[in-house]
Amino acid sequence: METRTEISSLGEFGLIQRINKSIKTTLPDTVRGIGDDAAVIDMGEEFGLLTTDMFLEGIHFDLTFFPLKHLGYKVISAGVSDIAAMNGIPRQVTVSIALSNRFSVEAVEELYTGMQLACKDFNVDLVGGDTTSSRSGLIISISVFGKVKKDKIAYRNTAKPNDLLCITGDIGGAYLGLQLLEREKQVFLANPNMQPELDGKDYVIQRQLRPEARMDVVYELDEAGVTPTAMIDVSDGLASDLLHICAQSGVGAVIFEERLPIDGQTMLAASELNIGPATAALNGGEDYELLFTVSQSAYEQIKDNPKITFIGYITDQRGAVELQTTGDSRVPLTAQGWNA
Amino acid sequence: METRTEISSLGEFGLIQRINKSIKTTLPDTVRGIGDDAAVIDMGEEFGLLTTDMFLEGIHFDLTFFPLKHLGYKVISAGVSDIAAMNGIPRQVTVSIALSNRFSVEAVEELYTGMQLACKDFNVDLVGGDTTSSRSGLIISISVFGKVKKDKIAYRNTAKPNDLLCITGDIGGAYLGLQLLEREKQVFLANPNMQPELDGKDYVIQRQLRPEARMDVVYELDEAGVTPTAMIDVSDGLASDLLHICAQSGVGAVIFEERLPIDGQTMLAASELNIGPATAALNGGEDYELLFTVSQSAYEQIKDNPKITFIGYITDQRGAVELQTTGDSRVPLTAQGWNA
Repeated sequence: METRTEISSLGEFGLIQRINKSIKTTLPDTVRGIGDDAAVIDMGEEFGLLTTDMFLEGIHFDLTFFPLKHLGYKVISAGVSDIAAMNGIPRQVTVSIALSNRFSVEAVEELYTGMQLACKDFNVDLVGGDTTSSRSGLIISISVFGKVKKDKIAYRNTAKPNDLLCITGDIGGAYLGLQLLEREKQVFLANPNMQPELDGKDYVIQRQLRPEARMDVVYELDEAGVTPTAMIDVSDGLASDLLHICAQSGVGAVIFEERLPIDGQTMLAASELNIGPATAALNGGEDYELLFTVSQSAYEQIKDNPKITFIGYITDQRGAVELQTTGDSRVPLTAQGWNA
Repeated sequence: METRTEISSLGEFGLIQRINKSIKTTLPDTVRGIGDDAAVIDMGEEFGLLTTDMFLEGIHFDLTFFPLKHLGYKVISAGVSDIAAMNGIPRQVTVSIALSNRFSVEAVEELYTGMQLACKDFNVDLVGGDTTSSRSGLIISISVFGKVKKDKIAYRNTAKPNDLLCITGDIGGAYLGLQLLEREKQVFLANPNMQPELDGKDYVIQRQLRPEARMDVVYELDEAGVTPTAMIDVSDGLASDLLHICAQSGVGAVIFEERLPIDGQTMLAASELNIGPATAALNGGEDYELLFTVSQSAYEQIKDNPKITFIGYITDQRGAVELQTTGDSRVPLTAQGWNA
């Protein structure tokens, strides 16, 4: 009799781990396969970078409140962010979409307008793709090709003890923006005459609907002559992504709750939704900020950059990833935040 | 009031044309964007090639008769075929899948076993991807990165008058294999005790379920010192794909019905299904053979290759793409075959 193991018994992460274990690379020009933000390909002078992402209606986005133009912008931004996380420069992107006849030609054009806007902002070319029909919702798959000088690449697994831990921008906003949008959707469904109450919440809403890959910081680090010792983009949440860096680098880390960069609007939204701002900052995903480590010698070069916050440091305590709380206790971080 | 144009009023092809018109490339290393089997990227010494494809359950495959292992093989083969169509060598592939909890861990492993088998056959590395949940069926998106020497690349739009028109292998089988599988499915649904009658049909079934990208011919052409003047892979059907070459090259073509390479099993299946074998050969897609043109001077180098059949020639009659029938009349080919 055939064995049937439910995916739920492993979880999505367990399933991915099980599949990845069986996959080996064999070509000399495959420098890095599965396990980082992008695959790394030896092109001689430079490294090529290749990353792919899939977005499904009903899983990754809700078109009742997600404008198609913003969605187009976001999917490109998310792909570019994976290239940024390797300290690379994105160059070409392909987009495949599947859609049903529920969509009009104008709706599809809105989606592409948003994608082209992002392509312009991040200086990438849309070079190909595939369009097909779908019996269910909208599905978008994007791949981004980029490049990076060989001595500039930043992997996840190369953080060193005593490195400084940095994050760009601010975090937690994209998650709270989504919570607000979902709350307003419920209000609207209950009473279609209600207008959404999103005044003064434009920043967190924008963080959810139209995130910006931090290519600006990639260029600024280059100008400052600084190469991160390790880097990842914050797509799953700071805690989860820091755990990736530490697990893959075989190190530990300490971060300071009081150092977490949280915007004022994010604070207000957290309060309104009765969610702790640190919880949102540590677990809320989709901020597409960069989490990276630098050697202490790089401190002087980047300390005055207002886009970069030092939030902690790397330790040699393999597996010990801890939050120093404002209450001055130290608690282990988990992929779901922290265990007090 | 907002205008709403139905996609059906343009058709899928019309929609793609409309979107593509608005897309321009701007980077100096983007050699070719949308419009060929793969995008072309300048990497200095060589060209990089990037292609992507999406496959949806219920649209592109039916899991009631499509074994997951074969499906895994096929999606990789289809992507590799796009690289072959540029006369390139595939190197790295990424795969994103979305699946519901209807699938077991073992089923997902079957799919990956098929993909890895294809990766081994075509000498490519599986280097990344994305796994997500789906509320509907199985969705697979693949991207393939390849490379090609700059003087070896074959585009679609460079066929010249008097070039010879060649096709690899044989055609029409994949389409008839699908018709047989769908017929047996209906028989089974009507009476679950019936066994499928597929004896002696293994070749056409295999053409549908487990097509092979023609990398063998790409290598043999290289050994023979021949570079096609233009090339495309036969995924939509010979007629449709030949029309692409002619339209993009600004030329015409004549092909000979009697020269169409059709396997004996394909003949038998066509007869059993009451479909003309030439109809299947011209319109049936998914054969993943290569359709290409060579200058007359290349004839001697490849005429003895049993995998290559000369089926016609290119003319300077822009837009006149014709079939010379066995009845010695000449009829225009359309994307649906021909108009007698």
